[in-house]
Amino acid sequence: MPAEIPVICFVAARSGTGKTTFLEKLIREIVSRGYQVGAVKSDAHGFEIDKPGKDSWRFAQAGSKSTAIIGPDKFALIQQTPTKKELEEVVALMSDVDLILVEGYKVSDRPRIEIVRKELGTELVSPPEKLLAVITDVADLAVSVPIFALDDVIGVADFIIDKYF
Amino acid sequence: MPAEIPVICFVAARSGTGKTTFLEKLIREIVSRGYQVGAVKSDAHGFEIDKPGKDSWRFAQAGSKSTAIIGPDKFALIQQTPTKKELEEVVALMSDVDLILVEGYKVSDRPRIEIVRKELGTELVSPPEKLLAVITDVADLAVSVPIFALDDVIGVADFIIDKYF
Repeated sequence: MPAEIPVICFVAARSGTGKTTFLEKLIREIVSRGYQVGAVKSDAHGFEIDKPGKDSWRFAQAGSKSTAIIGPDKFALIQQTPTKKELEEVVALMSDVDLILVEGYKVSDRPRIEIVRKELGTELVSPPEKLLAVITDVADLAVSVPIFALDDVIGVADFIIDKYF
Repeated sequence: MPAEIPVICFVAARSGTGKTTFLEKLIREIVSRGYQVGAVKSDAHGFEIDKPGKDSWRFAQAGSKSTAIIGPDKFALIQQTPTKKELEEVVALMSDVDLILVEGYKVSDRPRIEIVRKELGTELVSPPEKLLAVITDVADLAVSVPIFALDDVIGVADFIIDKYF
Protein backbone atom coordinates (compact mmCIF):
# COMPACT_ATOMS: atom_id res chain seq x y z
CA MET A 1 0.00 0.00 0.00
CA PRO A 2 1.71 3.21 -1.13
CA ALA A 3 1.58 6.32 1.04
CA GLU A 4 -1.64 8.21 0.59
CA ILE A 5 -1.53 11.04 -1.91
CA PRO A 6 -2.59 14.38 -0.38
CA VAL A 7 -5.77 15.82 -1.88
CA ILE A 8 -6.76 19.46 -1.35
CA CYS A 9 -10.03 20.98 -2.53
CA PHE A 10 -10.09 24.65 -3.50
CA VAL A 11 -13.56 25.93 -2.77
CA ALA A 12 -15.49 29.19 -2.67
CA ALA A 13 -18.99 30.21 -1.62
CA ARG A 14 -19.81 31.18 -5.20
CA SER A 15 -18.26 31.36 -8.63
CA GLY A 16 -16.15 34.27 -9.80
CA THR A 17 -13.59 34.22 -7.00
CA GLY A 18 -10.79 33.26 -9.35
CA LYS A 19 -10.31 29.62 -8.31
CA THR A 20 -9.34 28.42 -11.77
CA THR A 21 -6.76 31.12 -12.36
CA PHE A 22 -5.26 30.67 -8.90
CA LEU A 23 -5.09 26.89 -9.32
CA GLU A 24 -3.55 27.21 -12.76
CA LYS A 25 -0.74 29.34 -11.32
CA LEU A 26 -0.38 27.12 -8.27
CA ILE A 27 -0.02 23.99 -10.41
CA ARG A 28 2.68 25.70 -12.46
CA GLU A 29 4.50 26.77 -9.28
CA ILE A 30 4.39 23.35 -7.60
CA VAL A 31 5.35 21.53 -10.81
CA SER A 32 8.31 23.92 -11.17
CA ARG A 33 9.54 22.68 -7.78
CA GLY A 34 9.71 19.12 -9.06
CA TYR A 35 6.46 17.64 -7.80
CA GLN A 36 4.02 15.73 -9.98
CA VAL A 37 0.60 17.25 -9.70
CA GLY A 38 -2.84 15.90 -10.50
CA ALA A 39 -5.69 18.33 -11.12
CA VAL A 40 -9.41 17.68 -10.83
CA LYS A 41 -12.09 19.97 -12.20
CA SER A 42 -15.66 19.56 -11.04
CA ASP A 43 -17.92 20.63 -13.87
CA ALA A 44 -21.52 21.20 -12.84
CA HIS A 45 -22.83 21.72 -16.34
CA GLY A 46 -21.44 18.76 -18.24
CA PHE A 47 -18.70 19.01 -20.80
CA GLU A 48 -17.72 17.89 -24.25
CA ILE A 49 -14.18 16.68 -24.52
CA ASP A 50 -13.69 14.48 -27.54
CA LYS A 51 -13.71 15.77 -31.07
CA PRO A 52 -16.54 14.77 -33.43
CA GLY A 53 -15.31 12.40 -36.11
CA LYS A 54 -12.34 11.05 -34.18
CA ASP A 55 -12.32 7.28 -33.83
CA SER A 56 -12.76 7.45 -30.06
CA TRP A 57 -15.70 9.81 -30.51
CA ARG A 58 -17.25 7.35 -32.98
CA PHE A 59 -16.90 4.52 -30.43
CA ALA A 60 -18.53 6.63 -27.74
CA GLN A 61 -21.33 7.63 -30.11
CA ALA A 62 -21.85 3.94 -30.86
CA GLY A 63 -22.54 3.43 -27.17
CA SER A 64 -19.25 2.48 -25.52
CA LYS A 65 -19.59 3.32 -21.85
CA SER A 66 -15.87 3.71 -21.26
CA THR A 67 -13.65 4.84 -24.09
CA ALA A 68 -9.87 4.96 -23.83
CA ILE A 69 -7.30 6.40 -26.18
CA ILE A 70 -3.71 5.35 -25.74
CA GLY A 71 -1.08 7.45 -27.48
CA PRO A 72 2.72 7.33 -27.33
CA ASP A 73 2.91 9.89 -24.49
CA LYS A 74 -0.68 10.53 -23.48
CA PHE A 75 -3.62 8.52 -22.26
CA ALA A 76 -7.28 9.52 -22.06
CA LEU A 77 -10.31 7.81 -20.61
CA ILE A 78 -13.86 9.06 -21.08
CA GLN A 79 -16.66 7.40 -19.14
CA GLN A 80 -20.41 7.79 -19.20
CA THR A 81 -21.53 7.68 -15.58
CA PRO A 82 -25.08 7.20 -14.25
CA THR A 83 -24.43 9.84 -11.58
CA LYS A 84 -21.59 12.24 -10.86
CA LYS A 85 -18.48 10.22 -10.10
CA GLU A 86 -17.26 10.37 -6.50
CA LEU A 87 -14.07 12.31 -5.92
CA GLU A 88 -12.61 9.35 -4.06
CA GLU A 89 -13.03 7.11 -7.12
CA VAL A 90 -11.18 9.68 -9.18
CA VAL A 91 -8.42 10.02 -6.61
CA ALA A 92 -7.96 6.24 -6.78
CA LEU A 93 -7.27 6.54 -10.52
CA MET A 94 -4.55 9.19 -10.06
CA SER A 95 -1.85 7.10 -8.46
CA ASP A 96 0.85 8.59 -10.68
CA VAL A 97 1.19 11.94 -8.87
CA ASP A 98 2.54 13.39 -5.61
CA LEU A 99 -0.35 15.72 -4.89
CA ILE A 100 -3.91 16.22 -6.16
CA LEU A 101 -5.44 19.69 -6.35
CA VAL A 102 -9.20 19.84 -6.82
CA GLU A 103 -11.30 22.75 -8.03
CA GLY A 104 -14.64 22.58 -6.30
CA TYR A 105 -16.19 19.46 -4.76
CA LYS A 106 -17.62 21.13 -1.70
CA VAL A 107 -19.32 17.82 -0.82
CA SER A 108 -15.97 16.14 -0.24
CA ASP A 109 -14.56 15.43 3.22
CA ARG A 110 -11.05 16.27 2.02
CA PRO A 111 -9.16 19.25 3.47
CA ARG A 112 -9.86 22.55 1.79
CA ILE A 113 -8.42 25.89 1.02
CA GLU A 114 -11.17 28.44 0.60
CA ILE A 115 -11.03 31.51 -1.60
CA VAL A 116 -12.95 34.51 -0.31
CA ARG A 117 -13.21 37.59 -2.49
CA LYS A 118 -14.56 40.61 -0.58
CA GLU A 119 -16.82 41.88 -3.36
CA LEU A 120 -18.58 38.48 -3.50
CA GLY A 121 -19.25 38.16 0.22
CA THR A 122 -17.13 37.33 3.24
CA GLU A 123 -18.81 34.28 4.73
CA LEU A 124 -16.98 30.96 4.52
CA VAL A 125 -18.60 27.74 3.34
CA SER A 126 -16.03 25.41 4.87
CA PRO A 127 -16.49 23.86 8.29
CA PRO A 128 -13.51 24.93 10.46
CA GLU A 129 -12.28 21.36 10.96
CA LYS A 130 -11.75 20.91 7.22
CA LEU A 131 -10.20 24.31 6.56
CA LEU A 132 -6.43 24.39 5.93
CA ALA A 133 -6.08 28.00 4.85
CA VAL A 134 -7.92 30.94 3.32
CA ILE A 135 -6.94 32.94 0.25
CA THR A 136 -8.59 36.33 0.47
CA ASP A 137 -8.56 40.11 0.15
CA VAL A 138 -10.60 40.51 3.33
CA ALA A 139 -8.35 42.21 5.89
CA ASP A 140 -9.87 41.03 9.14
CA LEU A 141 -11.22 37.54 8.48
CA ALA A 142 -11.82 35.74 11.79
CA VAL A 143 -10.28 32.35 11.10
CA SER A 144 -7.66 30.36 12.97
CA VAL A 145 -5.86 29.10 9.85
CA PRO A 146 -3.19 30.79 7.72
CA ILE A 147 -4.44 33.55 5.43
CA PHE A 148 -2.88 34.31 2.03
CA ALA A 149 -3.43 37.20 -0.36
CA LEU A 150 -5.37 36.53 -3.58
CA ASP A 151 -2.14 36.69 -5.60
CA ASP A 152 0.11 34.80 -3.15
CA VAL A 153 0.65 31.68 -5.23
CA ILE A 154 4.17 31.23 -3.87
CA GLY A 155 2.98 31.48 -0.27
CA VAL A 156 0.32 28.84 -0.83
CA ALA A 157 2.79 26.58 -2.64
CA ASP A 158 5.22 26.91 0.30
CA PHE A 159 2.41 26.16 2.74
CA ILE A 160 1.30 23.01 0.91
CA ILE A 161 4.82 21.69 0.42
CA ASP A 162 5.75 22.36 4.05
CA LYS A 163 2.62 20.60 5.22
CA TYR A 164 2.82 17.49 3.06
CA PHE A 165 6.39 16.90 1.89
CA MET B 1 -12.19 -10.31 -6.99
CA PRO B 2 -14.83 -9.79 -9.70
CA ALA B 3 -14.92 -12.08 -12.75
CA GLU B 4 -12.40 -11.03 -15.34
CA ILE B 5 -13.74 -8.80 -18.08
CA PRO B 6 -13.14 -10.26 -21.55
CA VAL B 7 -10.80 -8.19 -23.72
CA ILE B 8 -10.58 -8.72 -27.49
CA CYS B 9 -8.11 -6.95 -29.76
CA PHE B 10 -9.12 -6.23 -33.35
CA VAL B 11 -5.95 -6.25 -35.40
CA ALA B 12 -4.85 -6.13 -39.02
CA ALA B 13 -1.56 -6.44 -40.83
CA ARG B 14 -1.84 -2.84 -42.02
CA SER B 15 -4.14 0.15 -41.86
CA GLY B 16 -7.07 0.61 -44.20
CA THR B 17 -8.81 -2.69 -43.51
CA GLY B 18 -11.80 -0.95 -41.93
CA LYS B 19 -11.17 -1.83 -38.28
CA THR B 20 -12.64 1.38 -36.93
CA THR B 21 -15.83 1.19 -38.95
CA PHE B 22 -16.32 -2.47 -38.11
CA LEU B 23 -15.73 -1.85 -34.41
CA GLU B 24 -18.08 1.13 -34.39
CA LYS B 25 -20.87 -1.06 -35.79
CA LEU B 26 -19.97 -3.96 -33.51
CA ILE B 27 -20.10 -1.74 -30.41
CA ARG B 28 -23.54 -0.48 -31.46
CA GLU B 29 -24.75 -4.05 -32.03
CA ILE B 30 -23.47 -5.43 -28.71
CA VAL B 31 -24.72 -2.42 -26.74
CA SER B 32 -28.15 -2.87 -28.37
CA ARG B 33 -28.23 -6.36 -26.84
CA GLY B 34 -27.88 -4.93 -23.35
CA TYR B 35 -24.17 -5.32 -22.67
CA GLN B 36 -21.95 -2.51 -21.42
CA VAL B 37 -18.98 -2.12 -23.70
CA GLY B 38 -15.62 -0.47 -23.21
CA ALA B 39 -13.62 0.60 -26.25
CA VAL B 40 -9.90 1.21 -26.50
CA LYS B 41 -8.21 2.99 -29.37
CA SER B 42 -4.47 2.71 -29.81
CA ASP B 43 -3.25 5.89 -31.42
CA ALA B 44 0.26 5.66 -32.81
CA HIS B 45 0.58 9.32 -33.67
CA GLY B 46 -0.51 11.06 -30.49
CA PHE B 47 -3.76 12.93 -30.11
CA GLU B 48 -5.25 16.13 -28.84
CA ILE B 49 -8.35 15.68 -26.82
CA ASP B 50 -9.04 18.66 -24.61
CA LYS B 51 -10.18 22.01 -25.94
CA PRO B 52 -7.84 25.01 -25.68
CA GLY B 53 -9.11 27.49 -23.11
CA LYS B 54 -11.14 25.04 -21.07
CA ASP B 55 -10.23 24.95 -17.39
CA SER B 56 -8.96 21.37 -17.60
CA TRP B 57 -6.83 22.32 -20.60
CA ARG B 58 -5.38 25.23 -18.61
CA PHE B 59 -4.48 22.87 -15.75
CA ALA B 60 -2.78 20.48 -18.15
CA GLN B 61 -0.91 23.35 -19.82
CA ALA B 62 0.23 24.46 -16.36
CA GLY B 63 1.86 21.05 -15.97
CA SER B 64 -0.62 18.76 -14.26
CA LYS B 65 0.38 15.21 -15.10
CA SER B 66 -3.09 13.77 -14.61
CA THR B 67 -6.11 15.93 -15.22
CA ALA B 68 -9.65 14.81 -14.44
CA ILE B 69 -12.98 16.43 -15.27
CA ILE B 70 -16.03 15.26 -13.37
CA GLY B 71 -19.40 16.21 -14.82
CA PRO B 72 -22.93 15.20 -13.82
CA ASP B 73 -23.00 12.21 -16.20
CA LYS B 74 -19.53 11.99 -17.67
CA PHE B 75 -15.99 11.62 -16.40
CA ALA B 76 -12.72 12.19 -18.23
CA LEU B 77 -9.12 11.58 -17.26
CA ILE B 78 -6.17 12.76 -19.32
CA GLN B 79 -2.68 11.64 -18.35
CA GLN B 80 0.74 12.51 -19.61
CA THR B 81 2.69 9.26 -19.72
CA PRO B 82 6.46 8.81 -20.07
CA THR B 83 5.89 5.87 -22.45
CA LYS B 84 2.84 4.37 -24.09
CA LYS B 85 0.52 3.05 -21.39
CA GLU B 86 0.19 -0.73 -21.21
CA LEU B 87 -3.12 -2.14 -22.34
CA GLU B 88 -3.38 -4.07 -19.07
CA GLU B 89 -3.20 -0.85 -17.06
CA VAL B 90 -6.02 0.55 -19.14
CA VAL B 91 -8.11 -2.60 -18.78
CA ALA B 92 -7.72 -2.28 -15.00
CA LEU B 93 -9.32 1.18 -15.18
CA MET B 94 -12.38 -0.05 -17.10
CA SER B 95 -14.08 -2.09 -14.40
CA ASP B 96 -17.49 -0.64 -15.24
CA VAL B 97 -18.14 -2.70 -18.39
CA ASP B 98 -18.96 -6.28 -19.43
CA LEU B 99 -16.59 -6.49 -22.39
CA ILE B 100 -13.66 -4.48 -23.72
CA LEU B 101 -13.05 -4.17 -27.45
CA VAL B 102 -9.64 -2.88 -28.50
CA GLU B 103 -8.62 -1.43 -31.83
CA GLY B 104 -5.00 -2.34 -32.44
CA TYR B 105 -2.48 -3.29 -29.75
CA LYS B 106 -0.78 -6.04 -31.68
CA VAL B 107 1.78 -6.28 -28.87
CA SER B 108 -0.86 -7.49 -26.43
CA ASP B 109 -1.21 -11.13 -25.37
CA ARG B 110 -5.01 -10.83 -25.36
CA PRO B 111 -7.13 -12.86 -27.79
CA ARG B 112 -7.61 -11.28 -31.19
CA ILE B 113 -9.92 -11.08 -34.10
CA GLU B 114 -8.01 -10.25 -37.24
CA ILE B 115 -9.36 -8.33 -40.21
CA VAL B 116 -7.92 -9.37 -43.57
CA ARG B 117 -8.89 -7.42 -46.66
CA LYS B 118 -7.83 -9.15 -49.87
CA GLU B 119 -6.66 -6.02 -51.69
CA LEU B 120 -4.25 -5.27 -48.80
CA GLY B 121 -2.67 -8.71 -48.60
CA THR B 122 -3.78 -12.07 -47.27
CA GLU B 123 -1.15 -12.94 -44.69
CA LEU B 124 -2.17 -12.89 -41.01
CA VAL B 125 -0.18 -11.17 -38.29
CA SER B 126 -1.71 -13.08 -35.39
CA PRO B 127 -0.11 -16.21 -33.96
CA PRO B 128 -2.69 -19.03 -34.26
CA GLU B 129 -2.92 -19.59 -30.49
CA LYS B 130 -4.19 -16.03 -29.98
CA LEU B 131 -6.58 -15.97 -32.91
CA LEU B 132 -10.31 -16.20 -32.11
CA ALA B 133 -11.72 -15.47 -35.55
CA VAL B 134 -11.01 -13.77 -38.86
CA ILE B 135 -13.11 -11.15 -40.61
CA THR B 136 -12.27 -11.22 -44.28
CA ASP B 137 -13.24 -11.17 -47.95
CA VAL B 138 -10.64 -13.83 -48.78
CA ALA B 139 -12.55 -16.93 -49.89
CA ASP B 140 -10.10 -19.67 -49.06
CA LEU B 141 -8.19 -18.49 -45.99
CA ALA B 142 -6.44 -21.44 -44.35
CA VAL B 143 -7.29 -20.90 -40.68
CA SER B 144 -8.86 -23.18 -38.11
CA VAL B 145 -11.01 -20.47 -36.50
CA PRO B 146 -14.42 -19.10 -37.55
CA ILE B 147 -14.41 -16.78 -40.55
CA PHE B 148 -16.85 -13.88 -40.96
CA ALA B 149 -17.55 -11.63 -43.92
CA LEU B 150 -16.33 -8.03 -43.79
CA ASP B 151 -19.88 -6.79 -43.19
CA ASP B 152 -20.99 -9.54 -40.80
CA VAL B 153 -21.27 -7.45 -37.65
CA ILE B 154 -24.18 -9.52 -36.37
CA GLY B 155 -22.28 -12.77 -36.84
CA VAL B 156 -19.28 -11.46 -34.91
CA ALA B 157 -21.53 -10.10 -32.15
CA ASP B 158 -23.22 -13.54 -31.86
CA PHE B 159 -19.81 -15.23 -31.77
CA ILE B 160 -18.47 -12.99 -29.00
CA ILE B 161 -21.61 -13.22 -26.88
CA ASP B 162 -21.79 -17.01 -27.27
CA LYS B 163 -18.17 -17.31 -26.29
CA TYR B 164 -18.14 -15.04 -23.24
CA PHE B 165 -21.65 -14.68 -21.83
